[in-house]
Amino acid sequence: MSPALRGFDPTLLLALNLLGTFAFALSGALAGVRARLDVFGVLVLAAVVGLFGGIVRDVLIGIRPEALRDWRYLAVVGAAAVLAIVAHRGLERTRRPIDVLDAAGLSLFSVSGAAAALAHGFGAPEAVVLGAISGIGGGVLRDLLLGEVPVVLRRDLYAVPALTGAAIVAVAYRLGAEAVIVPVLAALVCFAMRLAGLRYALDLPRAGARGDDL
Amino acid sequence: MSPALRGFDPTLLLALNLLGTFAFALSGALAGVRARLDVFGVLVLAAVVGLFGGIVRDVLIGIRPEALRDWRYLAVVGAAAVLAIVAHRGLERTRRPIDVLDAAGLSLFSVSGAAAALAHGFGAPEAVVLGAISGIGGGVLRDLLLGEVPVVLRRDLYAVPALTGAAIVAVAYRLGAEAVIVPVLAALVCFAMRLAGLRYALDLPRAGARGDDL
Amino acid sequence: MSPALRGFDPTLLLALNLLGTFAFALSGALAGVRARLDVFGVLVLAAVVGLFGGIVRDVLIGIRPEALRDWRYLAVVGAAAVLAIVAHRGLERTRRPIDVLDAAGLSLFSVSGAAAALAHGFGAPEAVVLGAISGIGGGVLRDLLLGEVPVVLRRDLYAVPALTGAAIVAVAYRLGAEAVIVPVLAALVCFAMRLAGLRYALDLPRAGARGDDL
Repeated sequence: MSPALRGFDPTLLLALNLLGTFAFALSGALAGVRARLDVFGVLVLAAVVGLFGGIVRDVLIGIRPEALRDWRYLAVVGAAAVLAIVAHRGLERTRRPIDVLDAAGLSLFSVSGAAAALAHGFGAPEAVVLGAISGIGGGVLRDLLLGEVPVVLRRDLYAVPALTGAAIVAVAYRLGAEAVIVPVLAALVCFAMRLAGLRYALDLPRAGARGDDL
Repeated sequence: MSPALRGFDPTLLLALNLLGTFAFALSGALAGVRARLDVFGVLVLAAVVGLFGGIVRDVLIGIRPEALRDWRYLAVVGAAAVLAIVAHRGLERTRRPIDVLDAAGLSLFSVSGAAAALAHGFGAPEAVVLGAISGIGGGVLRDLLLGEVPVVLRRDLYAVPALTGAAIVAVAYRLGAEAVIVPVLAALVCFAMRLAGLRYALDLPRAGARGDDL
Repeated sequence: MSPALRGFDPTLLLALNLLGTFAFALSGALAGVRARLDVFGVLVLAAVVGLFGGIVRDVLIGIRPEALRDWRYLAVVGAAAVLAIVAHRGLERTRRPIDVLDAAGLSLFSVSGAAAALAHGFGAPEAVVLGAISGIGGGVLRDLLLGEVPVVLRRDLYAVPALTGAAIVAVAYRLGAEAVIVPVLAALVCFAMRLAGLRYALDLPRAGARGDDL
């Protein structure tokens, strides 16, 4: 993101992006360890899951992917893979580590994705969609590669927190509020919504659930 | 698509794109209802299936995705998801609604994709391929996300109608025929071919079908 | 690739790309024949597997995909599909033809992808990653479409040869060595590593392999 563009603080957005990359990469690496991939399979999954959302976001915005211009993204991915390999037992002792890391990545990328889209001249509704794509992309690809039902289609809130976090950023931007607190708050709201959805296993209404045989 | 570029009428192409988005989004939403996703899963599938082909087309052409620049695409996706959720029983009473909607989306995007590629200076063979990618993309992603065999690999005509519709547009463009009737006719030919393939379950020759154990 | 850019000989890179496209397309077409797809399904798989890596590479670099600007890519894909359909019995008599062709495609695209990235101003680490993505992409998509575990996640060396081949090119470029021999040698090293991995079924350490129940 060019610092010359109007918008949220670039250093803050870089930090959100790197944190999100680390969270997603660690979720991918742990999923790879669970699936008993070898160390390179784990590294590949960490890279794919950590980098995919941001790369798709930048391709859609029409800029050279930040993850391929800044070596720190690759370093973060490598660190996450190493951490998963050496410390997966410790990490697994926490409650649902992959889900929580995935929720963190979702929150951070949804928010920074919306902010990046706004900074590059997208309208607010489009920025919300771009933010959500950026947040959701990595987890979907992780699940597809491992042959699981993509997380975004499972029966608990996933797209809604992403859209909410991105929407908070878009509305604040429209109102001229570009303080550091806005993206941080938006990410926390998204994260809390996602964890609440997991915790209480929110069962949303299903259109075809009333016994009709489709 | 910039109206300044030589080519088919931009308003017509926008109409084809919005109709194609609606058809694909509704096919995705109905598939989501059948798979008993919750309402947000249905909305996500509608968006992914409705928008994917056009977004890939625009990324390959090298322009900012139209679906992210024009709010009407998102409105159409939302309308399709709502329609699928409230009226899926009525829709299911028609014969093979997902297949027919998918055929409509395939036809409309193959034709408008080829036209968009030609307008942006791609050669005729490349425009045919781009049109087919644009038409095929959404359905393939829908099937991948739901864990089904991608429609384009199943045993009935799918890629051929897409390539034919796109080729009619490319040949007409080369001959200087840019009347409104050309893309409409091309889409109808593609649609009819696809439905005929489904209706008569055309069994194309298979290379490995003669009892040889590969 | 513009010949005006500094870097390896464009004619050599074109040859590597066309050969890689042919190898991947043939691997996809043979996989399609094995999966008993009809002739058009085989053609679609050949095109997808042959063209995907290069298209992703060019989108990430930010240029119009070479495979859509040069008709020879499509010709090569068509030739591979026809060859697979008419001669699959003969090809199957060789040892593991899909794996060997896949290894060839992997090697050629990893090397040419890294060279293309360097020629367009990417740094060395990013060029290595772009090369590996370019080499790995086609095989992963082939396996996803056919519902198989992606080759890059299976338990033998796949990403490492790709990264090695790309790294040789990047290091040589940094040292100013742009002779024709460099990419050829790098591709051969990658190919040999991949075949050795297959041949000796290298069992890499797995993080979760010591009997712990994750």
